Amino acid sequence: MNEKPVLVVGSAALDSVESPLGKVEDALGGSSFFFSTAASLFAPVRLVAVIGSDFPMEKIEFLKGKNVDTTGLETAEGETFRWGGVYHEDPNLRDTLFTKLGVFENFDPKLPEDYRNTPIVFLGNIHPALQLKVLDQLNNPELVVLDTMNFWIDGTPDLLEKVISRVDAMIINDEEAAMLTGQTDLRKAAANLFERGPSSIIIKKGQHGAVLLRKDGDIFCIPAYPVNLVKDPTGAGDTFAGGFVSYFAKHDFNNSKNWRQAIVHGTIVASYVVEDFSMDRTRNLTVEEVKERIGTLRRMTEF
Amino acid sequence: MNEKPVLVVGSAALDSVESPLGKVEDALGGSSFFFSTAASLFAPVRLVAVIGSDFPMEKIEFLKGKNVDTTGLETAEGETFRWGGVYHEDPNLRDTLFTKLGVFENFDPKLPEDYRNTPIVFLGNIHPALQLKVLDQLNNPELVVLDTMNFWIDGTPDLLEKVISRVDAMIINDEEAAMLTGQTDLRKAAANLFERGPSSIIIKKGQHGAVLLRKDGDIFCIPAYPVNLVKDPTGAGDTFAGGFVSYFAKHDFNNSKNWRQAIVHGTIVASYVVEDFSMDRTRNLTVEEVKERIGTLRRMTEF
Repeated sequence: MNEKPVLVVGSAALDSVESPLGKVEDALGGSSFFFSTAASLFAPVRLVAVIGSDFPMEKIEFLKGKNVDTTGLETAEGETFRWGGVYHEDPNLRDTLFTKLGVFENFDPKLPEDYRNTPIVFLGNIHPALQLKVLDQLNNPELVVLDTMNFWIDGTPDLLEKVISRVDAMIINDEEAAMLTGQTDLRKAAANLFERGPSSIIIKKGQHGAVLLRKDGDIFCIPAYPVNLVKDPTGAGDTFAGGFVSYFAKHDFNNSKNWRQAIVHGTIVASYVVEDFSMDRTRNLTVEEVKERIGTLRRMTEF
Repeated sequence: MNEKPVLVVGSAALDSVESPLGKVEDALGGSSFFFSTAASLFAPVRLVAVIGSDFPMEKIEFLKGKNVDTTGLETAEGETFRWGGVYHEDPNLRDTLFTKLGVFENFDPKLPEDYRNTPIVFLGNIHPALQLKVLDQLNNPELVVLDTMNFWIDGTPDLLEKVISRVDAMIINDEEAAMLTGQTDLRKAAANLFERGPSSIIIKKGQHGAVLLRKDGDIFCIPAYPVNLVKDPTGAGDTFAGGFVSYFAKHDFNNSKNWRQAIVHGTIVASYVVEDFSMDRTRNLTVEEVKERIGTLRRMTEF
C-alpha cells in the first residue's frame, strides 16, 4: 500500500515556555508544526499555516529532511504568532503569560493546487470558519479528523456544527464532549455525535490516556504511557493527533483494529514530545523508538 | 488451593448521600463495610470495626449470607459514625455536609482470638496508631495491604512510617505518593517506598484507572471500566481494595501476573459499586458478572 499524504492546517507559532525543568524562548510551536513533526514519521505531510516575516526559517530547516511539504506555509508581512506560558509542578496547571496573534489573526488558508486531492486531512484547533474554508478547497478527502475546543463550542457553535457534519473523526476532551452533547456519559455523548457527522470520537485525557468510541460499537481505552519526566507538555495533543492520523497513511481506516493501533501510535509519539521542550525530542524520533515503546505499553497493559 | 481468609479493619458508618441521580439517608457506609461486601465475593472475610448502640442491625443482615464474620464488629454505647455529602455533576467534586464521628472517635480495635492467624490483612484508612494496634495483634500475616491518605501523611508521619515499614502493599493516589516521597515521577516515588517497606504500590486514579508498580520491576497500567452512569462514587476506593485484596485468597501473591489480575478484579468490582447508592449494587453482585465485565475490559484494552 502506498503512503497516502496527510494535510494539516493549524497554527504556526514561536513559544516561550518555562517549566520546573527549564525554559525556552521563541521555540518552534503551534499545532501545525507539532502535528507535522510527529506525522512525518509515518506519512508525507502537507502543511498549511501562516508565519510572519520575522520568522527564523532555520528553525524549520529540519522539516525538509522529514517529508514535510511546506508549499502551503504562507509568509505574511508582520509578526509570527507568539505564545508564552509557565507550567507548575503539576503539569496540568499552566499560566498563559501572553498570546500575540500577529499574522495568525488574519490567517486565510489557501491550499496549493497540488494539495487539493490530499486523501487524509487534519483540521487543527483553529476558527471553524477557517476549517470550513480548507474543506471547501479539498476534493472529496477520504478521512477528515477534527480538533476543536470549548472556545469554539461556546463562541461559534453554528459554524462548528457545519464542520462536525463534514468530518469522520473528532478529538475532544470529556468536558467538551459534555458541552457539545449535554451528556456526561461518554457512550451517550458519542452516540449523539455519531448522529451529527463523525463515526469516530477520540476522548483525550492527557496524562490519563484516551478513549476511542466508534459508530460500529467498538470502544478502546488506553492509559497514557508513564513518562519519567515531563519537561514541557506543550503540543502533546497535536503530537498525539500527528501520530494518530498519520497511521492511516499506510493502514485501512475501514478497520476498527487499525483505529486502535492509530490511537496507540498517537499515545506513544505524544509520550516522547513531553520529554523535552518544543519539538526537540520528536524531531529526531525514530520509528524504532516508537515501536519499542509500543511494545512496553502493551506489556504494561496486558492481563 | 484453600481460600485464605481476609481481615479488614476500617470504619463503619451510616452515610447520607445526595447526587444528581438521587439521595439516600443513613445508608450503610464506611470502609470496612464497603470492603467486606466486595471482598466476600472471593474470600471469607473477618471484619473489625465499631458501631454505635443506635445501629440498625438489619442493614447488615445480608453479610451473614456472604461469608463475612462479624465477631470483630464491636457495638459501643453511643452513636454510629455518620457522614453526609453531596456530589455534583462532576462526580470528582463533593461537598461534605457533616462528619459525626460518634463511637468511631474512641475506636480501639480488638481482634477476636480466632482472627489472630488471618493470613491476609487490609488496613483501611484509619489512624495509623490503630493500624499498628491491629498489626500487633496478628501472628505473622502473609500479606498486609495498607490504605492511607494525605491527612495521616501530614498529621502523623512518624506513626504512619511505622505502619509503612510493616506492610507489603499500599494504595495511594499520585498526590499522596508525591507527598510521601518528594517525587512526582511515579517510578521514583515507588522506588523510594520500596526502600521503606512495601514491595507493591498501587496508585489509584479514580475514574482514570490505576497503576501498579512492583519491586520486581513490573508496571501495570489499567484504565477504569467506563461506567454508563455514576450514581454514587462513595466507597469506590474501599470496594476496589476489597476486590483486589480478596483475589489473593485463592491466588499466590508471589506472582506478578496475579497482582495484575487482582488489580483488574478491584477495578471491576469498583465499577459496579458506583452504579448505585451505598452497597446496593455490590451486595447482590455475582462472580459471573465480575468475570463478564473483566472480559469486556480486556477487549476494550487490547491492541
